[in-house]
Formats: sequence, C-alpha cells, structure tokens
Amino acid sequence: MSSMNKLSATIRTFHSSAARFKKNVEFTAVRYPYLKRGNYSFLSDRHLGFFQSILSPHQVLTDEINDLSGYNVDWMHSVRGSSRLVLRPKTTEEVGAILQYCNAQNIAVCPQGGNTGLVGGSVPVFDEVIMSLGLMDAVISVDELSGIAIVQAGCVLEKLETILHLNNLTLPLDLGAKGSCQIGGNVATNAGGIRLLRYGNLHGSVLGLTAVLANGQIMDCLSTNKKDNTGYDLKQLFIGSEGTLGVVTQVALHCPSKPTSVQVGFFGINSFDNVLETLRLSKQNLGEILSSCELIDQSSLECVTSQLKLKSPDLVNHFPFYILLETSGSNADHDAEKLNSLLEMLLKNGTIVDGTIAVDSTQATNLWTLRERIAEALASEGYVYKYDVSVPIRQFYQLVDVMRARLEKLPIRCCGYGHLGDGNLHLNITSQEYSSELLNKIEPFVYDWVSRQRGSVSAEHGLGLKKRDYIEYTKSPTSVHWMRRMKKLFDPNNILNPYKIFPGTLNE
Amino acid sequence: MSSMNKLSATIRTFHSSAARFKKNVEFTAVRYPYLKRGNYSFLSDRHLGFFQSILSPHQVLTDEINDLSGYNVDWMHSVRGSSRLVLRPKTTEEVGAILQYCNAQNIAVCPQGGNTGLVGGSVPVFDEVIMSLGLMDAVISVDELSGIAIVQAGCVLEKLETILHLNNLTLPLDLGAKGSCQIGGNVATNAGGIRLLRYGNLHGSVLGLTAVLANGQIMDCLSTNKKDNTGYDLKQLFIGSEGTLGVVTQVALHCPSKPTSVQVGFFGINSFDNVLETLRLSKQNLGEILSSCELIDQSSLECVTSQLKLKSPDLVNHFPFYILLETSGSNADHDAEKLNSLLEMLLKNGTIVDGTIAVDSTQATNLWTLRERIAEALASEGYVYKYDVSVPIRQFYQLVDVMRARLEKLPIRCCGYGHLGDGNLHLNITSQEYSSELLNKIEPFVYDWVSRQRGSVSAEHGLGLKKRDYIEYTKSPTSVHWMRRMKKLFDPNNILNPYKIFPGTLNE
Repeated sequence: MSSMNKLSATIRTFHSSAARFKKNVEFTAVRYPYLKRGNYSFLSDRHLGFFQSILSPHQVLTDEINDLSGYNVDWMHSVRGSSRLVLRPKTTEEVGAILQYCNAQNIAVCPQGGNTGLVGGSVPVFDEVIMSLGLMDAVISVDELSGIAIVQAGCVLEKLETILHLNNLTLPLDLGAKGSCQIGGNVATNAGGIRLLRYGNLHGSVLGLTAVLANGQIMDCLSTNKKDNTGYDLKQLFIGSEGTLGVVTQVALHCPSKPTSVQVGFFGINSFDNVLETLRLSKQNLGEILSSCELIDQSSLECVTSQLKLKSPDLVNHFPFYILLETSGSNADHDAEKLNSLLEMLLKNGTIVDGTIAVDSTQATNLWTLRERIAEALASEGYVYKYDVSVPIRQFYQLVDVMRARLEKLPIRCCGYGHLGDGNLHLNITSQEYSSELLNKIEPFVYDWVSRQRGSVSAEHGLGLKKRDYIEYTKSPTSVHWMRRMKKLFDPNNILNPYKIFPGTLNE
Repeated sequence: MSSMNKLSATIRTFHSSAARFKKNVEFTAVRYPYLKRGNYSFLSDRHLGFFQSILSPHQVLTDEINDLSGYNVDWMHSVRGSSRLVLRPKTTEEVGAILQYCNAQNIAVCPQGGNTGLVGGSVPVFDEVIMSLGLMDAVISVDELSGIAIVQAGCVLEKLETILHLNNLTLPLDLGAKGSCQIGGNVATNAGGIRLLRYGNLHGSVLGLTAVLANGQIMDCLSTNKKDNTGYDLKQLFIGSEGTLGVVTQVALHCPSKPTSVQVGFFGINSFDNVLETLRLSKQNLGEILSSCELIDQSSLECVTSQLKLKSPDLVNHFPFYILLETSGSNADHDAEKLNSLLEMLLKNGTIVDGTIAVDSTQATNLWTLRERIAEALASEGYVYKYDVSVPIRQFYQLVDVMRARLEKLPIRCCGYGHLGDGNLHLNITSQEYSSELLNKIEPFVYDWVSRQRGSVSAEHGLGLKKRDYIEYTKSPTSVHWMRRMKKLFDPNNILNPYKIFPGTLNE
C-alpha cells in the first residue's frame, strides 16, 4: 500500500512540472557564454517519472523558484546554473540507483554538498541534475578510544565537531564555512583550513570512504584501519577530485584528541625576514603544540578593523606584518609557559616589536575574528579579485609586492594574508567595481608568477569551473593527460560534474 | 672517445655472458611452483647490448654468482628469483629510457629499493630484469624553515635521517630496516613503522614525487607545496602500489621539527581491558607528545629476553601485558612532568601494576631493544609464521587468544605484539620446523578472522608475492576490479613488477 501511495504522489508532482520538461531549452552558462553544453539528454517526463518512482516526494525537487534557486547558484552568487531537478538521496544505494540510471540515459549530474565552494565546483553550469547529499547527514559512530568517526557525507562539519567534542575528540580540519559545509564536500575538495599545519590534510586523516561511481557501482572503501597496505589505496582518488570520479557518500575519519588548552598570541613585526624568523622560532620552540601560524598584513588588518568596526589588537603601533599564533595542547600551564617564553625571546632578540597573548577565550576569539573576517571586510569594499596560492615560504609575500608594483597608481587595495605555516597565501585585490581591464592586468600574470615558483594556483579552493583553465600552470601536461585518462576510465560518458577541473572538453 | 671506450667495455661484458643469454631456460618460481611465467621476452644479447649502450659498465650487472645473488633473493631468504640482469640507473631519464625499451620489447621489470620487504615484493619471481635504485641516493635539498626535503629514491632512510637531524628536522617515519631500506621503497610500499601514531602515514607526509611509468613517460609530481588542489592528486597512486604502476625516482617529504626531548616508559599490566584503559588515558594526558604506544605480551618478552640474553625491565613481577610508551616533545621538563603524572595516575587507579620510566637514553634504548628485537628472537627459535594485521582496537589481542585456543597442545609459541596505538598487531606463531599441516591450521583461518572484523590482512607489509592471494579478505571485489583496471591503464603490457599484488593473472 505504501508503495502505491508513493506512486500516486509521484504522479501528482510529475504532472505539475510536466509542461516544463517537454521543451528542450537552449541553455547558456551564465557568465561563461563561451562554454558549450555537452551532448547530454534533456530532462524528460520519463526521466522524472523514474526518479519519482524510486524516491519519496521530498527527495525530488522541481519547483524552480521556491526550491531550486538556492541549489543553482553558489553562495557568492558568482556562478549560476539552470538545473530543473534536485535529487536528495538518503542512502548510498539510492545514489547508486540514480547514477546508474543517469549513466544509462546520458544525463549529466552535479553532486552538491553544502555549496560553500569558491570556484563554482558545486553548482551546475547548464541543466545538470543536482544531487544534493544534504539528507544523508547521520553521524553513524564515534569512538573515543580509537578516535574513529564514521559519518554520512551530508553531515555538516560543525554538527560533527560538536559530537566529537562530547567524546573528547576534535576534527582534524576547521574552516570558516563549518556551519554549512558538509564532510563529503570537504573530502571531495580536499578542504584545508586553519588546522592543516597541525593535523595534515585529508589524504592522511580519511581512513576510508564509500563512493558511488558514475555507472552506479558502489565502491566500498569504508575501512576504519589506520594501516592497510592491501593493494592500491583507491579512496585517495576521490579525495580532492571534486565529484568528477565518484560521489562520496560515507566517510571514516581519524580524529585527534580534543586539546584542553588553546592559547592565542598576536605579534607585530617590522619586516618579512622577521616574519620568517618568527615562524622558524615558533616551530622550534612550540613544536608539537603549534596549531596555527597565520599572517595578516597591514592592509588586511586595516580593512577588517575599519570596515567591520573591530577593535585593533592592543599593540604599541601599526606594523607592516602581524602573525597570529595558536597553540593547542593538553596542559594549559605548560602551553602558556612555552608561548610566554617564545614571546619573551622574540621581543628580546628584536624579531618582533610588540606582541600580546590572549588572557581568556573572549580575547582569543577577538584575535581570531581579525583573521577570519578579512574576506568579508574586503567584499564590503567592492569587487574582489581573489587568489589562493601556494608558494615557497621565502617567496610568500613577494607576490603581494610584485602585484602592488604592477598595479601602482590604480585605485585598488592589494593585500595578502593566510596560512603562513603551510605556505598558503590569500592574495586579494579589491576595486570599487569589476573591471575587465584590471583583470587582464592581474591574470594570467599572477598564475604565471606562481608557476615560475613551482607553486600552486589553487592551494585549497580547488579548480571547479572558475579555475579549470589554469590547471597547467601547476600541473605538467603529462599529469593532466593522465588525469583525463583516469576520468575517462571511471566516467566514460563524462556524466559526473562535467565542465569542472579540465579545460576544454574531455576528449581534447 | 669515451663513448667508444664504453662501447668496447660493453662488448666485453656482453661476451662473457652471451652464452647464458642465448638459450631460453624454463624458469620456475622457487617455492611457488604453481606460478607460470608470463609471456615476456627472454633476455637476449640484443637487449643487453641496448642497456650497455645507454648505461656505464658498473650500472649493468650480469655476473650471477658475484653480482646478482643478493638482488635475486629477499633478505629473509624466503623468495628467490632467477634474474640475469640488474640495471642501476643514475637518473630519472635513465629509468625512463630503460622502461621505454622494456615496454617496447615486452621485457618484465622488477624495481628494487633496499630489498628489505617482508612479502617478496622486491625480488623477481622468474627472470624479470631487476632495476635497482641504489645509485640514485642523493639528498637533493633540505630546508629547515619549511621542513621540506627532496631526495632521490635510492637514498637510505638512516642517511636521510642523519642529514635531517643536522637541520633540526626529523623523519615522519622510522622503521627497524632504516639502515638499509630506501625512501623510494618506503614510498612504494607505504611503509609504516613506529612513528605513524604521531606523524601519520606517507599519504600525508609525501608532498610530491617523480615516477616513471611503464612506457617510460616521466610523471613529474615533485611538488613541494603542502597545499595543492589542482586536479587529481596523482602522486597518491604510486604510494603503496609496490612498483606496479610506476617507478618512484624522487620524493619530496614534509619533515617535522626534531623533538628535543624523548621519554620512554614501560608498564606492566594485568588484563587487556587495562591495556585499553592505559591507551585511553595516555592519549588523553600525553596528547600531542605521545609518539609511540607499543604492546608486548608476556610470551614475546620472555622470548626476547631469554633468546637474546637481554635484561628484563625493572618491574616487580611478570605480567601478561607490557606497554612501551614514548613521548617526543620540545621541553624535557614538561614532558617528564606529563609522563610522571600519567604513571602516578595509572598506578593509583590500578590500571597498571608497575611501571618504570627511563632516566637516560641508554635505559630508553634498552627498553626499545626489548620491542625491536622480538622478530629476531622469534626467528632464532625456529620457523616463524608471521602475520601483520590491523584489527579494531577492542579486538586487538583477541586474535592471539583465538589462535592459542585453536592450536592448543601443539608445541608452538603463539605471541602478539605491535603498534597498539594504530591497531596494528604482529601475530607470530613459531614451531621448531616448517610444517604444512600447521600452516593449514593457521591459514586461511587467520585471514578469515581478520576479514570478519573488517581488519586488514596486511597492515604495513604490503601484499607483494606472498600475500597477493589474500587481497579479497580485506578489499571488496569491486575495489580489486578497479585496481586491475588502473593497472591495465597505466601498464597495459604488465611489465612492471608482475606476479605481485594481484592473484591469478591480470586478465582474469
């Protein structure tokens, strides 16, 4: 009886949207008019009927205005697709059935997690069917002793963190978007963030995962073994492949013990050489408790304090550079002693000019706010040209200087901040309005400069749609060739997140 | 003139071995008589002439008795191949030229590092040409500030460690074989060891590598960026693929700061429940400084002390279980205080019965010796059936009990020790002599048991030749299917380390 009810509900929803699905609209990619839609099937009533026959009504969204608009556009409103259908599977098997059908029917699919990406990787470009993992949000198990958590892909990072904290564990990753990003999306994009310095990246922290391949096959790599050398480590393929090789549905994560003591220091520094010396001495003296080492330049700090009316840190002066240091440990007295003697040493030998250590968690939060809200402050000034690059540590700030010289006399702000300890710079250039002339002065120059340092043109944001054309600034033609061959092997019909990662078409 | 000299030397060596290369011998795999040689070319004078034309005389070894015997057999003398040629390239380009030729001529190749593997992965099975990386042993660069070391694949681990220590850095991995194993082999086998608990595995620590594919193509993934999300992370493919997808020739490694304080504790414990409680409290209280948590059972300790005439640790009694704890940190006072208060707490609440902390490095070394020489002590007792498995932490010791019950009344020793903190048990069963009857009582039972716990039948040793038949006890048929497809994609002629990892033939 219940399947009968489901079927009639199915047919009702289906009728309401039938008219829309009958015509084959010419789709164009908003803001990417030169892109051509792949030769995929247009969604038909028959297709919708199938999805409605295997899913419940609330798992099939077709109302473009009320339901789909949020799924079709990224959170920065920089990329917009024209999907007419969102599917919300609740199990790995449902993901499998959907993909098997899409593969057979040549329907393109855009997998979507929390849709917090910065490169347009999680929204459709044309009319790809959106597969949202948001209903698969269960925390399946957390084990304090082994530090292993098993979760469904759609679980929001902050929800998982809260549960881990109750078990004296913490997440090996932390990022600004944690209130909405999902662990499956984090894995698919190899999300980095502010704890990478301490806990490494997801290639090390993910113990296992389940992924569904383009043909619907379920690849069970959901191992919870910290050590397992039995053949190729296939799970690694899916980490950072941005949903183009398979859809991650479950993740087993190795979670470190929750630190019981967190200390935050904020230092003012007069030269970049002294910034590097501060990093060196911090690594040497804080060693195992150093959990973040973030650089903020004067222009970034000035922007965040003035635009957001935030109080400057309590230092004697303005400085060209600031470092925010965080320690995470298991003994507050020990950690404070280590951080205080570091501060003393740095002041005494003139490496830093002034510094402050947060006395309580409110002060610590206030200092972190200065770092975390820079992006928001910059956005409020106008149009932001954003670059997330990795460069060798000694050249970390050089790119900011180079760009300032190149854009001299233009009415812009050019600033740099980011994960100094990991060599990951966020270069930002703001102008009152978007200008293609300015863009042409920045790109491809900036990618070329990074390439010449053997850096990465996308350190943590991925390539998605917006950066796919720059892949060869970081990866060799041979590497890109083999990436394409792997894509072809795992997804011969190219139905999974097409138009992403690779420039041109896949058969080029 | 020098090329002429080289050529005449070439011809001389060539003549001395010409007779051998003219007949096509029937090769059989020693100890694996059921294996069939693949349909590869037999080495001919023409082949040898080619190799001698592109390499110097000392890079081409053909003397079976004086040169080849050490390369043909593994260090435990458990697997022996019949290769007639060892090539010792000095550059990535030479590796490329050799493989391009072998691929075109259908010649099978066995890449070899330090030849310290435990599963017969690094020696030929039949007459594969051995490619030894030993001449590529340069440390290319070490940078203290960024913690990045770039080395050639043939560099011996201990040599690299010595150089890192001079730069206040340390290796993220440490293993018993470090005096002879090579970093390329470590990467190719995803070597684990005793620091994995602290620094994670090589999938996290390797920043980049260069690999040469079966067709001779050079895959340059030698990034030194800690963060790089530009397309698929291809280097991951080669980590742990045991030389079957490509030959690793260079590695960029992220190296942590060298700890300035190392403390070692040794505890006697009455029950496995209390072993787990000791682990839990150690993780909670030592947190960031815990670098090893090794279990040694009574039988293992008794064997190592009696066979090798080593002094027992200074504890009041014998115990069913011992834990060796190591901390590595940056402040000796802090670390000692943490370890001492842990010891006090464990004694007070009865979790452990007795414990000792090494007062100096000699004592610490002596305690570590008890752990590190167990394998040697067991080998001196007779034939050892060795199993290196991952199991869920709560079932860690259960397998030893299960095997003891199964083999009751037989004149054997059944003991367990290993990396408790990583869930990696070394189960060892010794009998005076090899017995196929005993083997049949152990296998496949032991693999089946591990499989039912969703453990790994090879935690850190890999599959190689000896364990290839057990892959499906840990990996799903779908996973193995896709591993085979990847192998076929990267090495369509199956010339790279054939007979390894996959059971049967690749076309099955």
